[in-house]
Amino acid sequence: MLGWQMISDDGIDGLEQYQPRVPEPGPGEVVVDMKANSINYRDYMIVSDPRARGIELPRTPNSDGAGVISAVGAGVGDLQVGDRVASCFFQRWDDGPCSTDAMASALGGALDGVLSRRVLLAANGVVKIPDSLSFAEASTLPCAALTAWRAIVVEGGLKPGSTVLLLGTGGVSIFALQFAQLMGARVIITSSSSEKLVRAREMGAWKTINYRDKPDWEKEVLKLTDGVGVDLVVEVGGAGTIARSVQATRVAGRVALIGILTGGQFDPTAVMRRSITVQGIYVGSRRMFQDMLVAIDQHQIKPVIDQTFAFNDAQSAYWAMAQAGHFGKIVITV
Amino acid sequence: MLGWQMISDDGIDGLEQYQPRVPEPGPGEVVVDMKANSINYRDYMIVSDPRARGIELPRTPNSDGAGVISAVGAGVGDLQVGDRVASCFFQRWDDGPCSTDAMASALGGALDGVLSRRVLLAANGVVKIPDSLSFAEASTLPCAALTAWRAIVVEGGLKPGSTVLLLGTGGVSIFALQFAQLMGARVIITSSSSEKLVRAREMGAWKTINYRDKPDWEKEVLKLTDGVGVDLVVEVGGAGTIARSVQATRVAGRVALIGILTGGQFDPTAVMRRSITVQGIYVGSRRMFQDMLVAIDQHQIKPVIDQTFAFNDAQSAYWAMAQAGHFGKIVITV
Amino acid sequence: MLGWQMISDDGIDGLEQYQPRVPEPGPGEVVVDMKANSINYRDYMIVSDPRARGIELPRTPNSDGAGVISAVGAGVGDLQVGDRVASCFFQRWDDGPCSTDAMASALGGALDGVLSRRVLLAANGVVKIPDSLSFAEASTLPCAALTAWRAIVVEGGLKPGSTVLLLGTGGVSIFALQFAQLMGARVIITSSSSEKLVRAREMGAWKTINYRDKPDWEKEVLKLTDGVGVDLVVEVGGAGTIARSVQATRVAGRVALIGILTGGQFDPTAVMRRSITVQGIYVGSRRMFQDMLVAIDQHQIKPVIDQTFAFNDAQSAYWAMAQAGHFGKIVITV
Amino acid sequence: MLGWQMISDDGIDGLEQYQPRVPEPGPGEVVVDMKANSINYRDYMIVSDPRARGIELPRTPNSDGAGVISAVGAGVGDLQVGDRVASCFFQRWDDGPCSTDAMASALGGALDGVLSRRVLLAANGVVKIPDSLSFAEASTLPCAALTAWRAIVVEGGLKPGSTVLLLGTGGVSIFALQFAQLMGARVIITSSSSEKLVRAREMGAWKTINYRDKPDWEKEVLKLTDGVGVDLVVEVGGAGTIARSVQATRVAGRVALIGILTGGQFDPTAVMRRSITVQGIYVGSRRMFQDMLVAIDQHQIKPVIDQTFAFNDAQSAYWAMAQAGHFGKIVITV
Repeated sequence: MLGWQMISDDGIDGLEQYQPRVPEPGPGEVVVDMKANSINYRDYMIVSDPRARGIELPRTPNSDGAGVISAVGAGVGDLQVGDRVASCFFQRWDDGPCSTDAMASALGGALDGVLSRRVLLAANGVVKIPDSLSFAEASTLPCAALTAWRAIVVEGGLKPGSTVLLLGTGGVSIFALQFAQLMGARVIITSSSSEKLVRAREMGAWKTINYRDKPDWEKEVLKLTDGVGVDLVVEVGGAGTIARSVQATRVAGRVALIGILTGGQFDPTAVMRRSITVQGIYVGSRRMFQDMLVAIDQHQIKPVIDQTFAFNDAQSAYWAMAQAGHFGKIVITV
Repeated sequence: MLGWQMISDDGIDGLEQYQPRVPEPGPGEVVVDMKANSINYRDYMIVSDPRARGIELPRTPNSDGAGVISAVGAGVGDLQVGDRVASCFFQRWDDGPCSTDAMASALGGALDGVLSRRVLLAANGVVKIPDSLSFAEASTLPCAALTAWRAIVVEGGLKPGSTVLLLGTGGVSIFALQFAQLMGARVIITSSSSEKLVRAREMGAWKTINYRDKPDWEKEVLKLTDGVGVDLVVEVGGAGTIARSVQATRVAGRVALIGILTGGQFDPTAVMRRSITVQGIYVGSRRMFQDMLVAIDQHQIKPVIDQTFAFNDAQSAYWAMAQAGHFGKIVITV
Repeated sequence: MLGWQMISDDGIDGLEQYQPRVPEPGPGEVVVDMKANSINYRDYMIVSDPRARGIELPRTPNSDGAGVISAVGAGVGDLQVGDRVASCFFQRWDDGPCSTDAMASALGGALDGVLSRRVLLAANGVVKIPDSLSFAEASTLPCAALTAWRAIVVEGGLKPGSTVLLLGTGGVSIFALQFAQLMGARVIITSSSSEKLVRAREMGAWKTINYRDKPDWEKEVLKLTDGVGVDLVVEVGGAGTIARSVQATRVAGRVALIGILTGGQFDPTAVMRRSITVQGIYVGSRRMFQDMLVAIDQHQIKPVIDQTFAFNDAQSAYWAMAQAGHFGKIVITV
Repeated sequence: MLGWQMISDDGIDGLEQYQPRVPEPGPGEVVVDMKANSINYRDYMIVSDPRARGIELPRTPNSDGAGVISAVGAGVGDLQVGDRVASCFFQRWDDGPCSTDAMASALGGALDGVLSRRVLLAANGVVKIPDSLSFAEASTLPCAALTAWRAIVVEGGLKPGSTVLLLGTGGVSIFALQFAQLMGARVIITSSSSEKLVRAREMGAWKTINYRDKPDWEKEVLKLTDGVGVDLVVEVGGAGTIARSVQATRVAGRVALIGILTGGQFDPTAVMRRSITVQGIYVGSRRMFQDMLVAIDQHQIKPVIDQTFAFNDAQSAYWAMAQAGHFGKIVITV
């Protein structure tokens, strides 16, 4: 059972009932009529147990949405009614490095999220989306795509010829697969599903590893890289996989630490011995989002949407996420 | 009891007996008549249990030494007999990022070390030392000082006004104290000894924390930094302290992971949530060493030597290291 | 004769007459009661010939001021009446790299400046100043100090032991002298005045060159650096000096191109041959300003004020700037 | 008439006569039996007027060659007879930033070059080449390709979605066209030949500009980029084009200064005003060469060879270079 008040067993009714009243936009604010949401594992975890995250109810869930601006507050210069926009995961992280203040502005966590027909957002908390993206496609970008972009493009230190290891075929990994190839890097990807690995190869993955067959997958990675290891791991697994990820990384390589799918602990000795950089990555800035949209538009990158649910059936989207069997993103149309 | 063959209970005799025969220097090699060694906790660990590190005996221990060149092999252009030099921890890491090959060239580990009256080294595995440093002082630099330099100067991302947290008053921390101040950063340092904290303040530390009195020292650090945390931690403690170190670091800050004093594991979730970079640091390149020597000479930085032992009494130096009560470096004169 | 309308031969009267009416602050705006201004050579050039810069009259001159907030517009969260603040040179450059939009927000250029008893500024276009700085001192920072900070700290690539060359003793150079030493770099500084060079040495300059005696000063720099050249030149002279500056820079070194004091052209061949980076620097972001203030406060850096003029005598401040004989900054109290 | 002794009007005879006697390889040296050379505009300039470059005769010209190792000196661990290798432009630039010493090790300049049947090189002055490249192809890489790689990949600061401006269709520009696309950047390229622009489009260029039709080509670039300018210019033209290149670059963008095709001077004011970085680039390190080879092999990049000449007809290759009508590289088979 999902713990969030407005995503209760009442299903539709609960969600519809809890439509927050959206006031007039204040200075520096806009109102967005939502057309689509996407969800991430983080959203599922919050909805499942909001109190574990210290979240007070009621709160609208979800960070990722796309829609149309329907009202503009005072002092908003560069947006107008009718503009197609997506939400920024952090409402107050414009540019430069992350800050404590930015971290306190996450949608669907510290602040009300976007699983609603109409939401109030900071004008600096949305980005215009290109015509080449549908609302459903654009809704997949604020968290998973931007996390992958930051890990691969902004902090990855990749060059053409680099090798990247991706764990599984969830939203972040599939975007990372697309972005890594855009930069001339080659990708090794793991999954427990041969079918998904076939799809990954069709999308350009260089090598695939079925970790059901090869539970010591880090050894396979070393074999594939002549014993050297990869330049970058996009580590979405967390404590349960990071020790293997570090072993699979070359000396002076990099692990982008994103995931918290698995709990636990790990021994950091190999991080020191191998001069590895473990870079914690928690989404990204508005500037990074805008840069990413330029690349997506220019290269006509299409987000991979696994399943789409109706707004009234939002609860099913969370159940689908919980089952972790998807390839790419799960979308809710509003 | 120390496990290394030549550092046995025989003491002096064992050491003297095991003087490896130094052949004529081959192409690209030099012979150095050692005048001083310094030791690091890593050397103690290797000597205590070489097999745990996969080291085959006999092997000369220690990475850090300084002396005078007494012979020069063919093709060595920039060194001559009589030059005062220090050893490079890695014999094959000249410049650029670390590599697997460089890692396989550590003195006193993969290769014979420098606790010997006369040693054969790669010409690119020594650096000339300035006249302002004695042999004893120069012998403290190859591992501890260079590790601190890399953590603080090369990878620290510091600017004037930054705050750095140092754990304890061992060799790396005291060099880090000196280098951090040289860059205009202020230092918080911890110890269980009030006396050592007084000495640290005399050397310029901004704030000190006695972790015997304040076992939750990360909370003290947050108090001292208005709840923000430090920009950089030089983490010499390892798994036993890193969780607290991460809590003591500001969002988007950095932890230089150096130490392996304590074993164990840690939960990396906060690394992700706080967008922290954990940078594994295992000494540094010859280029970094040369850059460091320029700064040390220019600013007349004096390495802090805690205790000095005679060559014949080398075993006592290891026992002193094992007791971990020193402030700065432990030296063996040859 | 100064060309600007409100800085006319009428002197006081002209200035007092042209006090722009300050409206109520709109969303995201604040009103600042100015207490002090400082001027830069750029301000003199604009005032001398605003049309050459394409500036329409009337326009309030000057970018640099400090004062007290007297009114706060809607949606301004982190500032209140009574806060002591300084102006940001660019009203719309918060963080990250510079942009065309940021460049179009320069005070005393594209926008009305701060030589006025009361000014309207963007809330994101001011920074709070620490108590350790007087208004006069704080007023020296927005352009000259921030330019020096960016050149030395943000983009300088310096480490302890680096050598920096500064040209002359104007505002930027004297701040650069202070910041470079804060980072452990040593400074060579030039001037045509022996008296000023004595003052520079008293402030810590390592070496000085009187370019009246040594017109080929780049050769002196090479002598002082064993033929290698400096790591960084803060080039305030422009085309008339940059060719010599490039010769005085080490291979793979850096020239921070700031100044436009002298016109003309130069042959870039040596830039290529020596793998030099010429980095154009036009002030900096609000984030850099805030970082700089932390360092200034922590290290109790005191801006060097050469002369101070009364508001009614502002015109004399510009004449003083025109004569270029100052050491540090010229201030106007309001 | 070409000025170099062994490339005289005697043609074949002169070249064949002047085959330098290759001694036995000393410590750290190898002998390479050359199979192919490529030439660059720099080689033509040196051969045309060696004294203008301060080169003493006789000297073997050319930096770029590929062949087979026929002898190996003492202390050479990682190369053996039969290895296929290419020469490194700088014989002593292994890794890290460039140095004065590295600059003094250019083949065909400070040192004898590779236009010879058999040459003596430093073991650290060659790189192994992959099987996917013929000797002719590999011979095109040491100068032009590595310069383009460094400008685009190492120092370009590009991300997917960036826009790069290339001037003309010479060797560096055509490699830059290939590498920029590999990184997800789009390319604008100029030429005076419509035919060459068609070829460039066939190779993937996004937009082309015929500067014969549009002599103010910087304005075309601004039009194509919505008035913003490009992220990077690979400036091979030198002083005669750099002022336009700077105008065509976005605020905070970058100009890789490579070329010296045209002499002259330029006014650097716009570099400052637009916060542009002008990065002098003079080829690159051995490490960069090895990284580039990984990418070339992985992506099966094929160097574009415009014309091929026989060893005995080497002089004609220089005449072809002088006419500057080529698209890609000019090769001499040995």
